[in-house]
Amino acid sequence: MHLTDLRWPDVAALPKSTPVVFPVAALEQHGHHLPLYTDSFLLGEIVRRTEARLRDRVLFAPLQWLGNSDHHIDFPGTISAPPRLYLDLLIGLAENFLRHGFQRLVFLNGHGGNDVPGRQVVFELRQRYRTRKDLLLLFATYWNLGSEPSPGFQQSEMGHACEWETSMILRLAPHLVGNHQEAKPVSPTVSFHPAARGWITRDRSEVGHIGMPHAATAEKGEILFERFAGDATRFLEQVLAWDGASWA
Amino acid sequence: MHLTDLRWPDVAALPKSTPVVFPVAALEQHGHHLPLYTDSFLLGEIVRRTEARLRDRVLFAPLQWLGNSDHHIDFPGTISAPPRLYLDLLIGLAENFLRHGFQRLVFLNGHGGNDVPGRQVVFELRQRYRTRKDLLLLFATYWNLGSEPSPGFQQSEMGHACEWETSMILRLAPHLVGNHQEAKPVSPTVSFHPAARGWITRDRSEVGHIGMPHAATAEKGEILFERFAGDATRFLEQVLAWDGASWA
Amino acid sequence: MHLTDLRWPDVAALPKSTPVVFPVAALEQHGHHLPLYTDSFLLGEIVRRTEARLRDRVLFAPLQWLGNSDHHIDFPGTISAPPRLYLDLLIGLAENFLRHGFQRLVFLNGHGGNDVPGRQVVFELRQRYRTRKDLLLLFATYWNLGSEPSPGFQQSEMGHACEWETSMILRLAPHLVGNHQEAKPVSPTVSFHPAARGWITRDRSEVGHIGMPHAATAEKGEILFERFAGDATRFLEQVLAWDGASWA
Amino acid sequence: MHLTDLRWPDVAALPKSTPVVFPVAALEQHGHHLPLYTDSFLLGEIVRRTEARLRDRVLFAPLQWLGNSDHHIDFPGTISAPPRLYLDLLIGLAENFLRHGFQRLVFLNGHGGNDVPGRQVVFELRQRYRTRKDLLLLFATYWNLGSEPSPGFQQSEMGHACEWETSMILRLAPHLVGNHQEAKPVSPTVSFHPAARGWITRDRSEVGHIGMPHAATAEKGEILFERFAGDATRFLEQVLAWDGASWA
Amino acid sequence: MHLTDLRWPDVAALPKSTPVVFPVAALEQHGHHLPLYTDSFLLGEIVRRTEARLRDRVLFAPLQWLGNSDHHIDFPGTISAPPRLYLDLLIGLAENFLRHGFQRLVFLNGHGGNDVPGRQVVFELRQRYRTRKDLLLLFATYWNLGSEPSPGFQQSEMGHACEWETSMILRLAPHLVGNHQEAKPVSPTVSFHPAARGWITRDRSEVGHIGMPHAATAEKGEILFERFAGDATRFLEQVLAWDGASWA
Amino acid sequence: MHLTDLRWPDVAALPKSTPVVFPVAALEQHGHHLPLYTDSFLLGEIVRRTEARLRDRVLFAPLQWLGNSDHHIDFPGTISAPPRLYLDLLIGLAENFLRHGFQRLVFLNGHGGNDVPGRQVVFELRQRYRTRKDLLLLFATYWNLGSEPSPGFQQSEMGHACEWETSMILRLAPHLVGNHQEAKPVSPTVSFHPAARGWITRDRSEVGHIGMPHAATAEKGEILFERFAGDATRFLEQVLAWDGASWA
Repeated sequence: MHLTDLRWPDVAALPKSTPVVFPVAALEQHGHHLPLYTDSFLLGEIVRRTEARLRDRVLFAPLQWLGNSDHHIDFPGTISAPPRLYLDLLIGLAENFLRHGFQRLVFLNGHGGNDVPGRQVVFELRQRYRTRKDLLLLFATYWNLGSEPSPGFQQSEMGHACEWETSMILRLAPHLVGNHQEAKPVSPTVSFHPAARGWITRDRSEVGHIGMPHAATAEKGEILFERFAGDATRFLEQVLAWDGASWA
Repeated sequence: MHLTDLRWPDVAALPKSTPVVFPVAALEQHGHHLPLYTDSFLLGEIVRRTEARLRDRVLFAPLQWLGNSDHHIDFPGTISAPPRLYLDLLIGLAENFLRHGFQRLVFLNGHGGNDVPGRQVVFELRQRYRTRKDLLLLFATYWNLGSEPSPGFQQSEMGHACEWETSMILRLAPHLVGNHQEAKPVSPTVSFHPAARGWITRDRSEVGHIGMPHAATAEKGEILFERFAGDATRFLEQVLAWDGASWA
Repeated sequence: MHLTDLRWPDVAALPKSTPVVFPVAALEQHGHHLPLYTDSFLLGEIVRRTEARLRDRVLFAPLQWLGNSDHHIDFPGTISAPPRLYLDLLIGLAENFLRHGFQRLVFLNGHGGNDVPGRQVVFELRQRYRTRKDLLLLFATYWNLGSEPSPGFQQSEMGHACEWETSMILRLAPHLVGNHQEAKPVSPTVSFHPAARGWITRDRSEVGHIGMPHAATAEKGEILFERFAGDATRFLEQVLAWDGASWA
Repeated sequence: MHLTDLRWPDVAALPKSTPVVFPVAALEQHGHHLPLYTDSFLLGEIVRRTEARLRDRVLFAPLQWLGNSDHHIDFPGTISAPPRLYLDLLIGLAENFLRHGFQRLVFLNGHGGNDVPGRQVVFELRQRYRTRKDLLLLFATYWNLGSEPSPGFQQSEMGHACEWETSMILRLAPHLVGNHQEAKPVSPTVSFHPAARGWITRDRSEVGHIGMPHAATAEKGEILFERFAGDATRFLEQVLAWDGASWA
Repeated sequence: MHLTDLRWPDVAALPKSTPVVFPVAALEQHGHHLPLYTDSFLLGEIVRRTEARLRDRVLFAPLQWLGNSDHHIDFPGTISAPPRLYLDLLIGLAENFLRHGFQRLVFLNGHGGNDVPGRQVVFELRQRYRTRKDLLLLFATYWNLGSEPSPGFQQSEMGHACEWETSMILRLAPHLVGNHQEAKPVSPTVSFHPAARGWITRDRSEVGHIGMPHAATAEKGEILFERFAGDATRFLEQVLAWDGASWA
Repeated sequence: MHLTDLRWPDVAALPKSTPVVFPVAALEQHGHHLPLYTDSFLLGEIVRRTEARLRDRVLFAPLQWLGNSDHHIDFPGTISAPPRLYLDLLIGLAENFLRHGFQRLVFLNGHGGNDVPGRQVVFELRQRYRTRKDLLLLFATYWNLGSEPSPGFQQSEMGHACEWETSMILRLAPHLVGNHQEAKPVSPTVSFHPAARGWITRDRSEVGHIGMPHAATAEKGEILFERFAGDATRFLEQVLAWDGASWA
């Protein structure tokens, strides 16, 4: 169910064990061929398909499109929350539900740059509410939730405005996709892995994309949407099945 | 035009004099009869009608639904940015466009609680970018933009989940409206006016609404939408007509 | 009565319903003809006249002359609290009295630039002390408290170092007034009203004043002092008459 | 000369080598027998006598009565800036003059609790403006500026609402002094000296004073005022005599 | 080489391409059988062995033992930097070298709780110094640097006061190890993986350890030290070999 | 005893009256002839000698080498916590022990630049924990603890990389000392004393030292170490002897 459509007495009447999902994405440059809202369009579609399967068992907050995108601010049109503001913004999303006793809070993420701050935030929230013994605080990025990529894809991991994202926008809103066929591949490889390296997008790509947008098709997009919506659904089923106490 | 649909080279190609509009609203309790997303639904519709008239002359960022709603946090379901976070969040919305030289930035607001922080923010932004001589930084709340209320309304000013808001939701999404006919009037009068008084919603209303929701009709809603979309359009025409330099 | 002259056991013995007034003004450029302390001189005189009428029924803290004046910092001599510091400073003024149970706290303001931050502060304070049910937190600017301007004035609203302020300084300290007769009128009109527009003083006036200082006389100053002291007195009588509970 | 009375062109015309003095004091409990504004009354008188000797050679800002007094907040009537706010407030006082090129900034202090934060602030300011080579940034507490105490005093160092302060208020405003003759001596000795020990006033005195108020007389007050005004004058003469470059 | 032993002209004379390593660890509870300084003892030994191999080719700052350990603060003896302070502390470590033009900065980490904040910090630093084109900013945790675990170990990943850490302390300082043989295994499994879950240590272990301390031996400790020192050396060789420009 | 070597149950078992000592120093330029870690080397040796005398009666945290050294950041190799971060860092050191009921917390300092922030911190901590009646919060710099300097020294107070510090490093690690015999004396005199003056090191010394390093000998170093270790021991004996309640 969608928080947007409920009235406050509806929320007051929900079991406190109802999972509350906060979809978080971004509005940032996506190369020459994809729209700025790409991450939010995609997560929105995954949420739509997931919500259709879980219905009243899970509460979805509206998508927060303002993300941690300072690495993209050299490109016009990007709107970013600076890093510390983004931490506080995520905390702010959760606090009302924590105040009113909700126990299972899940950030469902659709932007790579949100991943580290999201992990920082679930850590901070647990410390802040450390006397609570009933809390399940999770941060998950949709493309990491587990199922294997299908054969036929050229990329084996998520890039940026890449084969995967371009395919999904081609499926969702093809009129918003520019000439992706001639976009040159940009390696998603990050040197010094598994060490973390600080970067801005211009370090890696003048055009803005990372990966292989030329390989995108709408058919691949549908495959990915189904895979990711399935992953998100299974993940939230697991949240629903939590016994309310165990750690491991 | 909608920022969500553009690619970054599109934004780079826009004249720097293009007005950029940031719609800001809220997600907060709206009494027993209106949905939590009311402010955002309404502003979204006003933006939709306004954009349809101005098209490529004005750039609209996506609506930011996270608002300054701490006065409502005693009611479950409200999601609020704490006051200082809200100031920083608004500043964050504007900064990328200021960085890239845009000159006319307009916050278009649909939540009363955002009004004072919005005024604070345009003040702060002007100080921070004080060496710029080409800036027009505006914060405007849609129901204050000027035209006179039509006859036939019981309220002469905006309340909260009131005759006006309920009418507009009845027009936009009647299936989301609860039993408003029996909602008791709550006076919008604020004592000690014109002094500003600090308040939380529970000071004024146990149920959550302020005003006269019983008087709402979908017909009134249509009248209000047209009035407010007209006001917003005229206001943005004025922004377009600005000569780029004058103050008065 | 004046807080400066009391001892702490005197304050401890006061009824908690005693209104506590915090006069807040500024020290900032006032054009070529008025002294930097103008706002504080004027508010100080209004407080003097008001206190003389209310005596022990109301407690006046000393005037805080450090104001929110960053829009004037391009002019030497201005001393300003940066915007966020000013918010915290106002909060700091109120906290001791809140800690000790006082219920009626009033910021009485004499500087236009303090108005928005003052409104922000009474909002923030009410949120922070949200469990209190006995609080009246007010912020009021003296020239907005209500009575009509007398005939014979050229300005109908407050400017800056204008007909009104110059008249009052002429009444209070004529030796501090420079050649105001030849000061050119600067329109107080703010374009895009009722939208809020971010500004610095240099946007509007190279010299520093806004309004019509040439029209000032000491006689007008006396009229204004009496009007404003009367307004402030009536306002504080209303605070005294509050029943301790009602909102509207 | 007094900043309050100048106009901004007067300040613009001053030599940048003019010393600018920021008197800083407090408003806080001073036992059962002295008024809350004691520190500010006393520093105000010392400034008055000092300014009368130095005239146009030194610029005095108005006294800032809001001090670092959290150790006294258990006593009603105290108004304190919390510790970090106080640091920022002092920085805010200095910044406009630094922005406009003034070179000799002096905080002249009349409250013991301001001493450590004042030292922190001149350190921080020097770091922040580290590229300037012409700066003299000083923080001085009036009773530490050097001349020896006269014979006949029972205290050899400053206390709080003590022989010294009570004597000076007796000289300045005897009608504000309560029954000091029967106030019991409270030792000013601080154990573990010269280590710094964190304290609140209630650790040391239930009544609020520290020292020997019973020994106060107006005659002693006059002696102290002259001594301290002389010290301050000599100190500022030294500031005036600085060659603009040397450290030692 | 060790920064502690150099004089500032030595640092000034180093090539700006010299890698600067900041070892960061923690001081926090390590169950009933290991000392509070465990993480710092272990990283110190790994640094010692690594420095012995790289000598003057790499500059090692002294180990910062204050870590991000708020999840352990329910256990006495833990000293933790709160989360935001820890972010600022890491930034503070790097800034002097960035100011003086050093190009290759590496945080070498020995505490799991530092991992997410460390990633956040290299992100933030890159944004802050975004105009630099010569920067390599890395954060690496020693047990993730790559080589495969040897056969014979019961754990395949790092725990806390576990088989691995206990083995290394047995090798380094056996007199500091308590009765680990009877410590019960605590599963290192974290449910909902790969989602991040917020936790405090008491959620997972009353005693404080996570993993299988009973399986520890000094021989295993030596194997681990060599493996990790080898990993760190290879990693820093890679940093040395960086061409100064490339990303992938 | 050393906190590093204890396990958390050991700390839990300590009497809450056990003094906890936090040694704090710095890593910063020490002229052309002394190593960057000088302050930390010296304090470390003083702690070693002091701990050897007090054993299990006092708990020593490990030395925090990151200090308040922004005045030295123009010299490469200095690592400094910016001023506000340093305040928070010291507070962070103390908090866990305050949380678990320890009553006697002592910062033992070995860097002049830490003195003012350390005083600020014990003030702030006492305010924050103002309801505690059993606290002894102290900040002490080792060379100020009291005993008289021996005859034969040219300096009578601490400088920087001076006769005293150079002597002690000559005693502790002579291989790290450069050519100090030819270092020119730099006056430690600070003009305008006893007023506090903001400074950066370059104001006072291009080379970096302050004082008379040429007069240093290892013999003097041993004398100083014994004097300072004796002072620290006596000071901590006084802390041990505190009755748990008295102020004076």
